[in-house]
Amino acid sequence: MEAPLIIRRKRDGLALSRDDIFSLVERYMRREIPDYQFSALLMAVYFRGLDARETADLTEAMMRSGQVLDLSEFEQPKVDKHSTGGVGDKTSLIVGPVAAAGGLMVPMISGRGLGHTGGTLDKLESIPGFNTRLTLDEFRRVLGACGMGLIGQTDDLAPADRRLYALRDVTATVESIPLICASILSKKIAEGIDGLVLDVKTGSGAFMKSLEDARALAERMVAIGTACGKRVKAIVTDMGQPLGCAVGNALEVIECIEALKGHGSGDLMAVSRELTAHMFVVGGIETTLEAARLRFDSILGSGHGLEKLALSIQEQGGNPRVVEDYSLFAAAQFEDAVVAPEEGYVAALEAETIGRASMMLGAGRERLDSVIDPAVGLVFEKKVGDPVAAGERVCAIYSNDRSRVARVREMIRGAMRISPEIVTPPRLILGEVGELSAVHGS
Amino acid sequence: MEAPLIIRRKRDGLALSRDDIFSLVERYMRREIPDYQFSALLMAVYFRGLDARETADLTEAMMRSGQVLDLSEFEQPKVDKHSTGGVGDKTSLIVGPVAAAGGLMVPMISGRGLGHTGGTLDKLESIPGFNTRLTLDEFRRVLGACGMGLIGQTDDLAPADRRLYALRDVTATVESIPLICASILSKKIAEGIDGLVLDVKTGSGAFMKSLEDARALAERMVAIGTACGKRVKAIVTDMGQPLGCAVGNALEVIECIEALKGHGSGDLMAVSRELTAHMFVVGGIETTLEAARLRFDSILGSGHGLEKLALSIQEQGGNPRVVEDYSLFAAAQFEDAVVAPEEGYVAALEAETIGRASMMLGAGRERLDSVIDPAVGLVFEKKVGDPVAAGERVCAIYSNDRSRVARVREMIRGAMRISPEIVTPPRLILGEVGELSAVHGS
Repeated sequence: MEAPLIIRRKRDGLALSRDDIFSLVERYMRREIPDYQFSALLMAVYFRGLDARETADLTEAMMRSGQVLDLSEFEQPKVDKHSTGGVGDKTSLIVGPVAAAGGLMVPMISGRGLGHTGGTLDKLESIPGFNTRLTLDEFRRVLGACGMGLIGQTDDLAPADRRLYALRDVTATVESIPLICASILSKKIAEGIDGLVLDVKTGSGAFMKSLEDARALAERMVAIGTACGKRVKAIVTDMGQPLGCAVGNALEVIECIEALKGHGSGDLMAVSRELTAHMFVVGGIETTLEAARLRFDSILGSGHGLEKLALSIQEQGGNPRVVEDYSLFAAAQFEDAVVAPEEGYVAALEAETIGRASMMLGAGRERLDSVIDPAVGLVFEKKVGDPVAAGERVCAIYSNDRSRVARVREMIRGAMRISPEIVTPPRLILGEVGELSAVHGS
Repeated sequence: MEAPLIIRRKRDGLALSRDDIFSLVERYMRREIPDYQFSALLMAVYFRGLDARETADLTEAMMRSGQVLDLSEFEQPKVDKHSTGGVGDKTSLIVGPVAAAGGLMVPMISGRGLGHTGGTLDKLESIPGFNTRLTLDEFRRVLGACGMGLIGQTDDLAPADRRLYALRDVTATVESIPLICASILSKKIAEGIDGLVLDVKTGSGAFMKSLEDARALAERMVAIGTACGKRVKAIVTDMGQPLGCAVGNALEVIECIEALKGHGSGDLMAVSRELTAHMFVVGGIETTLEAARLRFDSILGSGHGLEKLALSIQEQGGNPRVVEDYSLFAAAQFEDAVVAPEEGYVAALEAETIGRASMMLGAGRERLDSVIDPAVGLVFEKKVGDPVAAGERVCAIYSNDRSRVARVREMIRGAMRISPEIVTPPRLILGEVGELSAVHGS
């Protein structure tokens, strides 16, 4: 069918056939369909949506636009984790090593941060020498050597997603659940995985502000991933405040190393444990979630997770001694503090504003071409629910440009609320979606 | 505001500012905004619409993308007529000469036919030598010489409409009332007119199939034209069956010449009379519609309308003797007939199918690059409401490729219904919209 007729069908609320969807993506990649037709179609999809079958077809068409990694030579179950992004969201560096140490192969292809959310690649690159730009052959070698690998998106995997994402970004068509699903899943499935565990964030620091939207995204992603023949599980987690204590690149890596040594903060460990446990179940390493959680605890206690991280750093060209010697990381010149203005309980640490404050220090990207400062960021000493005295330190600010500290402090004060009443810490795991729920539901 | 933010505003149902609309069109014409952003915006407009103020701003921005004809050197009121298009819709060649003979200046810039509807330019080009490709200076000279002129769209007037229409055509964004309004009115207002009378067609052969949609389009066009400082009136007319008897280019010109000699069919004359009368009132030549109708009758009776058409043909390089000698027109080789299958009354001559049958003979364009055969077409000897005997001729088919006649006859039979009961001819003038209705309403 000619492109204008396909656009018209979608505009009029009709479903597109599998053939039409594949032909659209193939012709777009051959540049036979111009950007101006695809952007009109994307806007029609924004308004009319795609049903589950159409979304699965689009995911597969985008996945097949490039190579699909074949990891069948390795015997481990291949399971990845994907987070929709948040502030202080550093679970990959805990989940990956523990899952790999526990018998899974974890081929992680990650993104960079943009706006108030951080990106795993930026965090990794704060490790001296760590190379995230491996070829697919090098990636396969690293996976074979240590069971995990962490690289950035390449042109080889799902190139249609790269072109379409760039087009969506400049045509106000990013915020569409089926397009988000197809974008994420086409890349993940191209990694050659058997299963996937999704961490769908909700709250002020997340892309999905409401629980309903987050749950809808989780359900759609599980349905599409399943339709594409993968075992997929999603959990919905809170992103009202930053996860863990650190927000900033080297600071977050250090926090993860500490976590793998058994010194992680409660919320970070709870989310990492739940994600890893689901990965063990999805990969068939454990049959019950309870056993999978105990496997996480046991690996953490044995120190094998930390060893796996060090090995992974070494295999990707980084200096593995960072896990013992934090002075190998770039350090910020200045340390300032934000203190509690009055006695009480921390009632809110609004994540989006804190993410923006961290970006302002240089830890995040305002624009695609912004340069990241790996050393700077924030470390929270109090979290929501903690009691504070007047003048007690809530947060440390690490900076290299002190002229920005006043504004950053003001933003953090604006993001912080102190209540005279006792505050209950927020629930972290807000929901669970997946084919296995009925059997292993928590 | 950056283009993606403007697209997002419209996507989210918010109104665009006048500055944003002007800046969009200006930057699009300077190719600073690419087609892929404008097509996404057009699709967002398709779903969200534009309010009256936004549509007026878009109309003006498109009008100002090129020259605006200045006809102030001429003393006549400048009034044009525009039809939304139909089958056998040939009123321009009657209305233009009578209005010009009655004291108006009529600067008509017309389009070509596409699909089942005919175009005034194609009809004019069936007159030997008639040149529709005048420069604006030549057009002005012709207007000065005879008070009317008929040319095609030029690159000088509203060039933004040309580019945007081409983009809408390939991105399924044609069918949007505010975009249709802006497209039509930007070109018309660039003609340097003081007033405009619109013939909004409704029924099977029209773009607007329902009376409600036609009335909505009429109301919107009157509102926008008025907001742009023009006196605008619209009538809604029936396009359930072809207007008049002929469908085809030379055949329709001959029908108009006959009409200007006083031999026009009832429906064609009724619509032409009403349009011309409104033009006289809009232009201030008459103050009441009744007086304006009598002026039409008097000009027709005097033969001044026919003289004006002949002068206009001569001024535009055509052979004015065609008004007396129809053998100067190209003639078709073959004449066939469609007869009534049974006795009764003609109950339907479904216009869209008849338009497609005429296109199949070569009188219309299936694609932009199709070549028109000026000689071929259909002439109806019976219209809806007429009694017929079994075997009596309803329609003549004039062709140059007889292999198509069987299919054309079949289509016309499919478009025709004969009823055993008496059928009342359809109402022709279905509504009237305009600022003057309250004063001069019929």
